[in-house]
Amino acid sequence: MSKKIQAELISIGDELLIGQVINTNSSWIAEKLNASGIKVYQAISISDNKEHILQTLEECGSRSDIIIITGGLGPTKDDITKETLCEFFNSKLIFNQKAYENVEEIFRVRGFKVSEINRRQAEIPECCIPIFNKNGTAPGMWFENNGKIFVSMPGVPFEMKSMLEDFVIPKLLVHFKTNAIIHKTILTQGGGESHLAEIIADWEDSLSENMKLAYLPQPGIVRLRISANGENEGELKKEIELKIKELQKIIPDKIFGFDNDTLEEIIGNLLIKAGKSLSTAESCTGGAIAKMITSISGSSNYYMGSVVAYSNDIKEKILGVKHQTLIDNGAVSEDVVKEMAIGVKNKFNTDFAIATSGIAGPGGAVEGKPVGTTWIAIASPNDCVAKKLLLGDHRGRNIQKASLTALNMLRKTLILLYS
Amino acid sequence: MSKKIQAELISIGDELLIGQVINTNSSWIAEKLNASGIKVYQAISISDNKEHILQTLEECGSRSDIIIITGGLGPTKDDITKETLCEFFNSKLIFNQKAYENVEEIFRVRGFKVSEINRRQAEIPECCIPIFNKNGTAPGMWFENNGKIFVSMPGVPFEMKSMLEDFVIPKLLVHFKTNAIIHKTILTQGGGESHLAEIIADWEDSLSENMKLAYLPQPGIVRLRISANGENEGELKKEIELKIKELQKIIPDKIFGFDNDTLEEIIGNLLIKAGKSLSTAESCTGGAIAKMITSISGSSNYYMGSVVAYSNDIKEKILGVKHQTLIDNGAVSEDVVKEMAIGVKNKFNTDFAIATSGIAGPGGAVEGKPVGTTWIAIASPNDCVAKKLLLGDHRGRNIQKASLTALNMLRKTLILLYS
Repeated sequence: MSKKIQAELISIGDELLIGQVINTNSSWIAEKLNASGIKVYQAISISDNKEHILQTLEECGSRSDIIIITGGLGPTKDDITKETLCEFFNSKLIFNQKAYENVEEIFRVRGFKVSEINRRQAEIPECCIPIFNKNGTAPGMWFENNGKIFVSMPGVPFEMKSMLEDFVIPKLLVHFKTNAIIHKTILTQGGGESHLAEIIADWEDSLSENMKLAYLPQPGIVRLRISANGENEGELKKEIELKIKELQKIIPDKIFGFDNDTLEEIIGNLLIKAGKSLSTAESCTGGAIAKMITSISGSSNYYMGSVVAYSNDIKEKILGVKHQTLIDNGAVSEDVVKEMAIGVKNKFNTDFAIATSGIAGPGGAVEGKPVGTTWIAIASPNDCVAKKLLLGDHRGRNIQKASLTALNMLRKTLILLYS
Repeated sequence: MSKKIQAELISIGDELLIGQVINTNSSWIAEKLNASGIKVYQAISISDNKEHILQTLEECGSRSDIIIITGGLGPTKDDITKETLCEFFNSKLIFNQKAYENVEEIFRVRGFKVSEINRRQAEIPECCIPIFNKNGTAPGMWFENNGKIFVSMPGVPFEMKSMLEDFVIPKLLVHFKTNAIIHKTILTQGGGESHLAEIIADWEDSLSENMKLAYLPQPGIVRLRISANGENEGELKKEIELKIKELQKIIPDKIFGFDNDTLEEIIGNLLIKAGKSLSTAESCTGGAIAKMITSISGSSNYYMGSVVAYSNDIKEKILGVKHQTLIDNGAVSEDVVKEMAIGVKNKFNTDFAIATSGIAGPGGAVEGKPVGTTWIAIASPNDCVAKKLLLGDHRGRNIQKASLTALNMLRKTLILLYS
C-alpha cells in the first residue's frame, strides 16, 4: 500500500447549472472510486464553456491524481468537451476506425444509416486511448499527462456506467495502489436523526480515531454510515464489525439492513425463504408499493399482484370491502384497510397481503381526518393487524413514507413468524 | 437592468463524495436562481472538512456575488458548517431565542422534550440574519460581506426548499437587479437525439446569437432547451415563441409538451376535459404506470385504479383473460394484452384502459421473445389497439420506457378523439 490517491469529478453541461438535470453521475462514480480505495476530493459541475472547462482541468489536474470528466460528448453543437480536451492536451482530432465501426453497428441494430453528424462521433484526440462505448456512439477517452490520469466519458449514465466499471476502474487499479477506505452503512427505521444520536451517543464517542460516523436521514429512514481509513483492509473490516455488533445491542429493533439493502429486497428474500406469497391492495399509495416490490428481478416468484383501488366502488367490487363498512367508517379507517388486506389476500390466494388507505394530500382532508392520515394493514395467514400514521401534507413524501412503513411492517411480521 | 449577477453553489457533506447521496439540491436551487435572472457559474460538492470549506468559501466569494451553501447543519458531530462559517466571518455563536422557540415547537408537535443536542441548534453566528426553518430545527443563515451575499441552509431538501423560496430568493431580488435569462424546454417523444438533430438542423442554425439550444435525452424522451439572454424579458419571450412555432411545423407529431409538463399530468387534463375515466392493467410495468398517474393530486377524479397482474392466474381470474389465449400465445402477446385492457376497462367500468405485458428482464426470455419484448394496449370506448416494443435488457429502463410509451399512446388517442 502506498500514498493515498485522490480523484476529482468534473460534470460538464449547461443543463446541470440551470437545474434541468439532476447530477446522478457524481455520486455513482464517487461510490465506485471509494470502493476502490480512491478518495474523492470534490465534485464540480460546470457549463459547456471552453474557458471554464480549461481552467477547471488546470486546477483539478494541479491538485489530484485522477480527473474524471463526464458530459459534453454528444453529437450536437452545444457539446464541446472533446474539442476542449484537444486544446488542453495540445492534440488534434483523428478518425478512429474501431469507434466508427461501433457507431455503424449501433445504427445498424436500430435500422438507421450513419449520418455525417454521427460519423464525427468516431473522431478522438490523437493523444488519448479510446474507451469503447457499448451502449452509445460517443467513445470515452483516457489521457495520461505528467503522471495524472484524465478520463472523459459521456454524461448519459447508462453509457458512462459500463465504461467506468469495465475499463476505467480496472485500469486505474493497475496504475495506483491505495490506502483502504471502508464504508459500512447501517439502515435504521423508527426514530429521527437526533433521537437516534442521543441513544447512541456513548457508542459514537467510543469509535476510534480512524473512524467517522455520519447520519443520513431520508423520509422514514435514517442511515448511519461508518467510514474507516487505514492500511490493512482486513483489520478495518474487523474493527467495523465489532462496533456494529455493539450497536445492534443498543438498538436491536431499529436496524433493518446494511449498505444497499432495500426493504423490497429484504422482504423478497424473507418470502422466498419462507416459501410464502404476497399481494397488495393500494389506495393512497397508488401503486408505489407494487412498483417497489416489482423493481426486484424475480419478484414474480412470490408477488402475485396488486389492486390499486382508487375509488370506493373498486374497493367494494374487486376487493370485497363491505358497503356498510365504508358508510360507517369512511375509506380511510382501520376497518376498511383490514377488509382490503383480507380481500386481496383471499382474491389473489396469497399467504400475506399489504393494504393502504389514506389521504395523501394536498387536498382531501375531512372532519377528524387531516391530510396525511394513513391506515396500513398487514394480513398474515392467521391474523390481520392495522396501524395508523399521521404524516405531513406533502403528497410525494406521504406516499413514500407510507410505502416504506408498510414494507417494514411486513418485514417485522415475517421475521416474527419465520425466524 | 444592471450588470449580470452570478451565483455559486456549495454542497457540503461527506455523503456526497462517497456516493451515498445524490445531490438533488444543486439542480433545484440552480433552477430557482435562473428563473430569477441569476446565472449559476458552478456547483461544487465538498466534504465536511474545515480547511476545504474555508478555502472554497474564499474562492467562490472572490469570484461571484452570491454563494449558496447547503448541508452540514445537523445536530450531530460530523456537521461543522456553522462553526466554520463563524471562523470565516470572524464571528461567534450566540443563542437565538426565536430559533429556540421553533425547536421547542417542532418537538412539542412530535411529543418530545428538547434535548441538549437540539438546544444547540438554536445557536447562530452573531453576524448573520437567521432564516426561519418551518420544517426542521436548524435555522438558515444570511451573511453580507463586502457586498457579497452568503447563504447557508440545511441539506435536507424538504427544509431547504421553503427557506429558499420564502426568504432567500425574495431577499436576493431586493439586493440585485439582473439581465433576464429565459429558458423554454420543448418535450419530444419518438426519435433519438441525433435523429432529431438532423431533422431540425436548419432551424437550429437560424437561432439568433443570444439563443442557445441543448439536447437533453432521457429514456423515451428528448427535451430541447432554448436559452435566451437579454435585457428585455418580454422581447425574449416573443422571440422564443416565434422559434417554437417554426419548430412545431417541422416536427408537429413529436412535441408533446413544454417545460415541466409530464405525460401523467397532460393525460389527466385531457381526461378531465373530455369527462372520461381510466383504469390500467399492468404486468411488466408492475404498478409504475399507476404510480405515475396517482402522483397527480386529484387523479381520483378520473382514475379508478389498476390491477397489477403479476401471474397468469390473476390475469385470468381478475381481468378475465381467456385461459386458451394464454396457452396459445403466451402472456407476452398482442391477444393477451388486448384482453387485459378490455378486461380491466369492463371490470372497472371506465372509458379507457391501458394494459402492458412484457419481459422486463434481466431474466425471463423465451424462444422468439427476447428480454425487452413488450406489448402495450390502449382500450378506448369503441376500439382496442396494441403496439409491440423491442426494448433493452435493463429492467428499470424497460419499465420506464414502457410506461412512458403507454401514456403517450393514450395521449395521442385522447387528442385524436376529443380535440
